[in-house]
Amino acid sequence: MATDRRTAILEGATRVIARRGIRGLRVEELAAEAGVSTALIYYHFKGRAGILRHTLEFISDRAGRYTAGREGPAGPYDPRRELERSLLLEFQDDPEVRENSTAWGELRASAVFEPELRTDLARAGLTWVHDVAALLGRVCPQVPAPALTASAERLTALLEGLSTRWLSDALTSARAREHMREAVSAEIGQLARQWPGGTGARCEDPSTAPTFLGHRS
Amino acid sequence: MATDRRTAILEGATRVIARRGIRGLRVEELAAEAGVSTALIYYHFKGRAGILRHTLEFISDRAGRYTAGREGPAGPYDPRRELERSLLLEFQDDPEVRENSTAWGELRASAVFEPELRTDLARAGLTWVHDVAALLGRVCPQVPAPALTASAERLTALLEGLSTRWLSDALTSARAREHMREAVSAEIGQLARQWPGGTGARCEDPSTAPTFLGHRS
Repeated sequence: MATDRRTAILEGATRVIARRGIRGLRVEELAAEAGVSTALIYYHFKGRAGILRHTLEFISDRAGRYTAGREGPAGPYDPRRELERSLLLEFQDDPEVRENSTAWGELRASAVFEPELRTDLARAGLTWVHDVAALLGRVCPQVPAPALTASAERLTALLEGLSTRWLSDALTSARAREHMREAVSAEIGQLARQWPGGTGARCEDPSTAPTFLGHRS
Repeated sequence: MATDRRTAILEGATRVIARRGIRGLRVEELAAEAGVSTALIYYHFKGRAGILRHTLEFISDRAGRYTAGREGPAGPYDPRRELERSLLLEFQDDPEVRENSTAWGELRASAVFEPELRTDLARAGLTWVHDVAALLGRVCPQVPAPALTASAERLTALLEGLSTRWLSDALTSARAREHMREAVSAEIGQLARQWPGGTGARCEDPSTAPTFLGHRS
C-alpha cells in the first residue's frame, strides 16, 4: 500500500511536470494531483528536492521499461537491432511516452537555471549513456570503452535534441526515428573506420544497411 | 537612435530570458532592464508575442555573426573547415555566446509548453538548417538536397542536445566541440558511402581526418 501511494505520488509529479514544467510543481498541487495528503508527501520525500530526485529515477526506470522490449523468441539475437530499438522506442505517439519525454526534457532544460538539479540528473544521464555504450560494445566489440562512451554521449544528446523538436511538433515521430537510425548507422560506420579491428569480432560496415531519409535510389 | 533603443530592448530581452527563462519576461521588467519606458516597448513590439518573435531573430542573427568568422586570408578556401567552424563556434566560454545559447535553448524548450512560440521558432530553425545544409553541399556536391537537409537536421539537433548539457556544466566546451567534430566526420562518411558519386566532385572519405575522442592510437 505504501508503495502504491509512493508510486501514485511519482506518477502525479511526472504528470504535473509534463503539463506545466517544474516551476508548476508545488507540494500542495502534487497532493491534489496524486490524491494524497501533503503530510504523506513530506513523509516519503522530505520536500521538493526529494520529490524531484525520485521523480527523475521514476522517469528513467519507466523509459528503461518501454525501450527494453525485445522482439520475441523468433530469430537469433541481433545487438544492432536491440540498440536501434532502445533508441527508436523513445519516439512513440503514446501518451505515457510523450509525458515521460516531456518531463525528462523539462528537467534537463531546467538544470541550466537550477544548479541543484544537476547532480541527480548527471547520475541518471550517466546510467543511460552507460547502457547505450554497452549495447554499442556488443555491436562493435573491437572498439575501446572511451570511444563507445563518446559515441553513446552523442547518440543520447542527439536523441534529446530531436525529442524537444518532436514534442513541439517540429518533427514527426517517424522522422525522428529515421534520424536516429541514420545516426546509429553513421556512428557505427565511423567506429568501424577508426578501429578496423584485428582478426577477432568487429562491427560490420553498415554501408549495405537500408536508409530511409533523403530518397536514396 | 530609434534603432539603438530597439537593439537595447532586444539585448535586454535576451539577457532576461537567459537569466530567468521566458516566464521571467514581463514588459515592466524588460523596460527596467533596457532602461526604456514600457510605452516604447509597446510602440516597437506591440506586446509579449512581438518581443519574443523579434528576440528570436536577434538571437539567430547574433549567433550567425559569432559563428561566421573566417580564418583570415591565408590558405585556400576549405568548405569542410568552414562547416566545422560554424558549428564548433557555438561552444565558446564567452559570456555573450553562453547568454545567446541559453536564451535559444530556453525558447526551444518552452515551445513544448507554449504552442504560440512554434511558428517563429520553426522559421528561425529552418534558416539555420538551410545554412548548414548549404555548407554540407559544398563539402559533398554529389549528394542530393534532401539528404543534405536531413544531415543538417541531425547536426543542429545534436548541437542543441549538447548545448543543454554544456550550459548545465555536464559537458565542457572542449568536449562539446570534439563531439561536433566527430559527428561532422561521421555524417560526411555516411554521405560519402551512400552517394559514392560519379566522376565529378565528391566529398572525401574522412577516415584519415584526425580524431580527438576515445584516445585513438
